[in-house]
Amino acid sequence: MSPTVTADALDSAGIRNAVNACLEDFLAVKARNADAECLPAEVSRTLHDFLSAGGKRIRPVLCVAGWHAGGGDQTPPPVLQVAASLEMFHAFALIHDDVMDNSATRRGKPCVHRALTALHQAERGRVEADRLGASAAILIGDAALTWADELVHTAGLTPVQLAAVLPLVDIMRSEVMYGQYLDITATGRPTGDIGRAMRIVRYKTAKYTVERPLHIGAALAGSPRSVRDALSGYALPLGEAFQLRDDLLGVFGTPARTGKSRLDDLREGKHTALVALALCHADPRQQDTLRALLGKPDLSEHEGDRLRHLFVDTGARDAVELMIEDRRGQALRSLETAAFPPAVAATLRHLLTVKM
Amino acid sequence: MSPTVTADALDSAGIRNAVNACLEDFLAVKARNADAECLPAEVSRTLHDFLSAGGKRIRPVLCVAGWHAGGGDQTPPPVLQVAASLEMFHAFALIHDDVMDNSATRRGKPCVHRALTALHQAERGRVEADRLGASAAILIGDAALTWADELVHTAGLTPVQLAAVLPLVDIMRSEVMYGQYLDITATGRPTGDIGRAMRIVRYKTAKYTVERPLHIGAALAGSPRSVRDALSGYALPLGEAFQLRDDLLGVFGTPARTGKSRLDDLREGKHTALVALALCHADPRQQDTLRALLGKPDLSEHEGDRLRHLFVDTGARDAVELMIEDRRGQALRSLETAAFPPAVAATLRHLLTVKM
Repeated sequence: MSPTVTADALDSAGIRNAVNACLEDFLAVKARNADAECLPAEVSRTLHDFLSAGGKRIRPVLCVAGWHAGGGDQTPPPVLQVAASLEMFHAFALIHDDVMDNSATRRGKPCVHRALTALHQAERGRVEADRLGASAAILIGDAALTWADELVHTAGLTPVQLAAVLPLVDIMRSEVMYGQYLDITATGRPTGDIGRAMRIVRYKTAKYTVERPLHIGAALAGSPRSVRDALSGYALPLGEAFQLRDDLLGVFGTPARTGKSRLDDLREGKHTALVALALCHADPRQQDTLRALLGKPDLSEHEGDRLRHLFVDTGARDAVELMIEDRRGQALRSLETAAFPPAVAATLRHLLTVKM
Repeated sequence: MSPTVTADALDSAGIRNAVNACLEDFLAVKARNADAECLPAEVSRTLHDFLSAGGKRIRPVLCVAGWHAGGGDQTPPPVLQVAASLEMFHAFALIHDDVMDNSATRRGKPCVHRALTALHQAERGRVEADRLGASAAILIGDAALTWADELVHTAGLTPVQLAAVLPLVDIMRSEVMYGQYLDITATGRPTGDIGRAMRIVRYKTAKYTVERPLHIGAALAGSPRSVRDALSGYALPLGEAFQLRDDLLGVFGTPARTGKSRLDDLREGKHTALVALALCHADPRQQDTLRALLGKPDLSEHEGDRLRHLFVDTGARDAVELMIEDRRGQALRSLETAAFPPAVAATLRHLLTVKM
């Protein structure tokens, strides 16, 4: 089951399979223990269903890439288990996110809180079942966070590895929480503050999704600070480019491809770089229209088109495209100057091409 | 600032002060770091306000008691910091609990989600501010959970201590989450299943509040399994007695003393041992009344009185009093047979007298 490393690139599919097996095994033990103690099977079953419904496992793959970047050999089980813990943590983040947004679906299935509402609806009224679904999802998210810890703690790391990894895990968690906090408090009242928009991008995505998983892998390999810095030189611009592209797709993308309505972000009034740039460069009349329509809960298709025109007319869309291009260039240059093993460099270069 | 140990009993007030200072220092660093990175001060400030608004610090005191029970000397800073982490974890549990119950007040002040709603209400509509308050409270609870980890990780434990403590921290967290899960899914539709009611008591309170804090302290001292078992012999019956008393007070207590309405638990339809016993021993007519009134959201004072009479008439109240007495006796006998240092025994004996 151990993924192989070829000269070309890391075996991403092998890493995904090994991580999935690790998560399955872990949850199977949790299910057996719960059964033995007459505790509800719903908790581990819900997480099992959520984790098997999809997900690209990008954080685990990057964690393993970090391990090899730091000079790690093979991909031993402790490294895979730490990689798996990042996916368990991500389940926590998504489950709570969906409760906060009251989202309906995730990965093509009802969100956890909706599924739990449905499960308990027969015995309760609608309002009570809604509340119970949300509460149960909050608790199951909490369980995922706790179990992400447990996966790290029981990975079989040496004391030196544990001491190197725990501070990074703690930092990553604080960062993503701050990023989310910035995001939810800015949503609904976007401004022209581009610095704030980029702080959300950096904390919520660039550090959480790319930089810290790489760092954690590198720390497991005992790599020096310089390797971590080289990884950041690649990770931060790439992560920012990811999120900026995602923000553009949320407004200009093809719903059939992105899987979500092009009106959601606009109706919520997300404080993205696109929106901040438009607000900055709009003339007074355009400003008025932007302020009237951004965050309007019942925004029509026609109004959505008006906003899209404004993003183009103010030059905001082009500016974001330039930012993405600029960041891709930075990430690529960092990769070229860093002395990563060829398979790692190939894997990281691949990410630069497929995701944009 | 280090608490002293007298021959009589542990210096509980000193432990509380040292734990409070540890939490203050930790959050002050978090506030400074957030400021330096332009991240919202609201997160650490909210936790600071929450933690300084009250709380008996019973888990930290028990953790230090466990340390001494396990043969630990003095109370070194790492032990105090682990004790403090239990209070940070408890902040997480209470903040999420209040979101789930949509409670209004805690420790005489508005709950975290309510305070955050008020903070953001000026700029938003009511519904949006309510949602934002709940979301922000969920995130701040998540931060508290993550920071509880960080307090353990940065306590300066030896690798051996860390390896002994982390599994217990993980178990404690799973247990309380399962206890909460059992509780919320049983609330609103209580049954005569006394085993289920006692499982809620055991996981939500006895293990979380009493047993695991003692175990964690004992593990820090490197104590053998036998000490932990002796602590369990005291902790589980005491913790169960605590919760059974709390359940009785929730229904029969004096609101001026308990600080909460005597109708709350009945209106919610909490699945307590009292309720389960009443349902078990009720005749068919009493059953009908119990089922009609338990969980009725607008239960009147008069209907509350009817339920109280039924708890008396079915013998449920007396049965719970007997259960409490029985458990107090068990805890006391365990204490007498255990060979704890005199100061520890005195502290644990004291808990048996003041809390009932």
